[in-house]
Amino acid sequence: MLFLEVKFLDLDLETNAVIINEEDIKGTAYYSQDRVLIESKTCSFIGTLQSTKTMIKPGEIGVSKYIKDIKLNEGEEVRVRHAQKPQSVSYMRKKMNGQTLTADEIHTIIDEIVSKKLTNVELSAFLVSTYIRGMNTDEIVAMTKRMAETGDTIQWEKRPVVDVHSIGGVPGNKYALLTIPIVAAAGMTIPKTSSRAITSAAGTADVLEVITNVNLSCEEIQRVAKTTGGCLAWGGAVNLAPADDIIINVERPLSIDPQPQLLASVMAKKIATGIDYTVIDIPVGYGVKIKNEKEGNQLARKFIELGELLGIRVECVLTYGGQPIGRAIGPALEIKEALMALHDPKSAPNSLIEKSVSLAGVLLELGGRAQIGQGQKVAWEILESGKALEKFNEIVVEQGGTITKPEEIELGEYTMDIHSPKDGYVTGISNKLITKLAKEAGCPKDKKAGIFLRVKTGNNVNKGDILYTIYSSSEERLDAAVNFARRTYPIKVEGMMLKRLSKF
Amino acid sequence: MLFLEVKFLDLDLETNAVIINEEDIKGTAYYSQDRVLIESKTCSFIGTLQSTKTMIKPGEIGVSKYIKDIKLNEGEEVRVRHAQKPQSVSYMRKKMNGQTLTADEIHTIIDEIVSKKLTNVELSAFLVSTYIRGMNTDEIVAMTKRMAETGDTIQWEKRPVVDVHSIGGVPGNKYALLTIPIVAAAGMTIPKTSSRAITSAAGTADVLEVITNVNLSCEEIQRVAKTTGGCLAWGGAVNLAPADDIIINVERPLSIDPQPQLLASVMAKKIATGIDYTVIDIPVGYGVKIKNEKEGNQLARKFIELGELLGIRVECVLTYGGQPIGRAIGPALEIKEALMALHDPKSAPNSLIEKSVSLAGVLLELGGRAQIGQGQKVAWEILESGKALEKFNEIVVEQGGTITKPEEIELGEYTMDIHSPKDGYVTGISNKLITKLAKEAGCPKDKKAGIFLRVKTGNNVNKGDILYTIYSSSEERLDAAVNFARRTYPIKVEGMMLKRLSKF
Repeated sequence: MLFLEVKFLDLDLETNAVIINEEDIKGTAYYSQDRVLIESKTCSFIGTLQSTKTMIKPGEIGVSKYIKDIKLNEGEEVRVRHAQKPQSVSYMRKKMNGQTLTADEIHTIIDEIVSKKLTNVELSAFLVSTYIRGMNTDEIVAMTKRMAETGDTIQWEKRPVVDVHSIGGVPGNKYALLTIPIVAAAGMTIPKTSSRAITSAAGTADVLEVITNVNLSCEEIQRVAKTTGGCLAWGGAVNLAPADDIIINVERPLSIDPQPQLLASVMAKKIATGIDYTVIDIPVGYGVKIKNEKEGNQLARKFIELGELLGIRVECVLTYGGQPIGRAIGPALEIKEALMALHDPKSAPNSLIEKSVSLAGVLLELGGRAQIGQGQKVAWEILESGKALEKFNEIVVEQGGTITKPEEIELGEYTMDIHSPKDGYVTGISNKLITKLAKEAGCPKDKKAGIFLRVKTGNNVNKGDILYTIYSSSEERLDAAVNFARRTYPIKVEGMMLKRLSKF
Repeated sequence: MLFLEVKFLDLDLETNAVIINEEDIKGTAYYSQDRVLIESKTCSFIGTLQSTKTMIKPGEIGVSKYIKDIKLNEGEEVRVRHAQKPQSVSYMRKKMNGQTLTADEIHTIIDEIVSKKLTNVELSAFLVSTYIRGMNTDEIVAMTKRMAETGDTIQWEKRPVVDVHSIGGVPGNKYALLTIPIVAAAGMTIPKTSSRAITSAAGTADVLEVITNVNLSCEEIQRVAKTTGGCLAWGGAVNLAPADDIIINVERPLSIDPQPQLLASVMAKKIATGIDYTVIDIPVGYGVKIKNEKEGNQLARKFIELGELLGIRVECVLTYGGQPIGRAIGPALEIKEALMALHDPKSAPNSLIEKSVSLAGVLLELGGRAQIGQGQKVAWEILESGKALEKFNEIVVEQGGTITKPEEIELGEYTMDIHSPKDGYVTGISNKLITKLAKEAGCPKDKKAGIFLRVKTGNNVNKGDILYTIYSSSEERLDAAVNFARRTYPIKVEGMMLKRLSKF
């Protein structure tokens, strides 16, 4: 136990840090990052120790003056001791030892994650042990339900409520901007929440935000979907399955995405949003999460099984994810491409149209709006008739934006064309490098930044042809992007003769 | 990437925190605790993001004004982006996936731990994966060697240099204060480094510090051992195998101690201290790390095998660890008990004498100072002759202290006797509760605090007999300890009739 005098600091860190001189903890059982209980005569709270050489004198403890509901006086003596370990820690040890967790134990872990009782060390231990040991179906069901229960939920009067969800990884994946209005135009209810860019250059929310508001509350999502049938909101503005965001925060630095968490993360949001059935898009290919059809099938089966146990009908679609969808990557470029496709689907890129219409078709069949086998055709008719555009504009206006034409979208004023260094064929477009390039140019914060692809894989090109154009709002960032492009070659052009050997 | 203006803060946190307004990272790929690279036109450094609501305005980045060797100007624009993941992260993923790591990969992990390149999330992932997947002997050898190489090392002219090490867990485990002088008095070189209390009430270093200096540098350890043959220093004042301390910092909150780390931690310090052979004490019993003889044997075999591969002769001794050693727990009480045992070994507690003399005996046999089977006898003769006391005093003086008699040791002025509530037998003394009780009374910081046991397991007691006495320098803490004792019963007294059943 340490006895220290309170000193208030103009410090406001989310970790609830309490600052202590390193002399006071040298050779004791207390270390930086420890979770400690601070007790005065009248109150107590839990903080995280941080040590300092200079900010705080030995014998004092620095406490944020912004700390809420705590009555402390400057100079008052407080006792500092280790806070009890959260219950989760012993359940994590069970998982490390290869045991199965009960539903109650999983509930405790999720509850303590949501109430921010776990440190990063503990969250990391939880993730790594589920990554290595896995979870059985009962465990995943318990985790998914609790993740949904510990956040807000949306209730619907009119049923069924449907949804489409991509597990991501492909640049330019703007299909939802077509699929949602097509499905809503057919009279179905499809309130879609999307993410912003996490590792990508632009999430659907970033793209739509160029022309309308996407920060909707649960009530606004309900109102928009009730009025228009559709909705395209940012999932981060609502508190749906909040454990997920906290978990992702630790997955990222470790570059792991344990399958139990992936499944639970998707399905918990569906439960919270009140979805009756959903189509899950699993892109397959080099440079995305799922490398081949076999892995895709396995994941699909797990989603379907989990859906059955949770009372949500799930249909999975494996889609080609080996290169970007359409030609535009970056918020403004993508909304422009989507608007052009809604206005004139016949001249839009085939990959975008085919993906949007296929996914819409599955939903129309599931919802009885099309005969089995006819969904794609019906979806195309809705798109071609202009009804999807009309519905899209309705949603945009209902969310607080104004109807915008594709030619009204402003793109970055600094641009650079990148040319083919030789005659040949486009043998590959790297999803990862195209994403990095768009981010170098300023995506997603610079909405006008991005890449417009003039070629797709398989195209024949001549030396000097434009492969793609980089856009940015900043000359400096454009330069950085061009340098990156010249170093990394995101688009590969090769002659038919790949290598010349002088001897056999 | 974020573009922000530098604002200097009077902030000095060891995590190299850079503070950013939460508005600037909302909806971006940046999160609190992220490792980021901050670049200006003239310099760059790596920091850890922390978000704030009030300390920093949107568009600004708070940087510690104590940050070293960095030339930044207030108001200058810097670019902030994710720092590259350390190489270790991909090796950790290999371990998570059950693969064996190469020596080079393990070296990189240890190097990055020592150079503080890993965050707590990453350290936790490393520990949990080695806990679950284990390490083979080659991996442990590589880890142990690198842990030793990445810190200071001590070289010796006169060989062999011996050592005794307890893996800990038993309260009152002050044997080294007798064993070291016995062995040194026999002409051997035994420079012992000890820990302070980590989870215990008093480490050997805390105990000896009551009468002499224990914060010795490598040079001082060499000098004291050269002059006297022995040495009793705090291991934390020297930079021996520093990776160990960083790893322990993450093991503690998870309450795990993966065996590879336990083995490497002990043996790396032996290599760094230049030890030729060591006796490892493995306490076995309820309430310590090793629960039974089988587990003890397994661990012993691993220590011996690892020693062979590292060129250190290891002998292991399983000792009884089911209750405290001797009767005193707490720094001043323990040094007093050790001094009394050195002065008058015949009237000292049997458990302390037997353990100290047995361990010394093994070392004397290994060093050729006693025939095989005669070590314990020779050790006892050295202790009884007063030569061990003489040597102990020599070491105390050489380390900078003065010769102290047991009656000169001051104990806490506030004391309370705890009495037996009934007639019966002492059926158990809980190691964990006795340790907690001593800490409630103020150990290890309050050197005069502690517990003196009047009874040991198996003793016959009458109602009202004193079971133990609690000491403290603070009346308030004594009260807290007495309350704790009355709630938890660290010593159990039971009649022969454990339970009375009224019906068969």
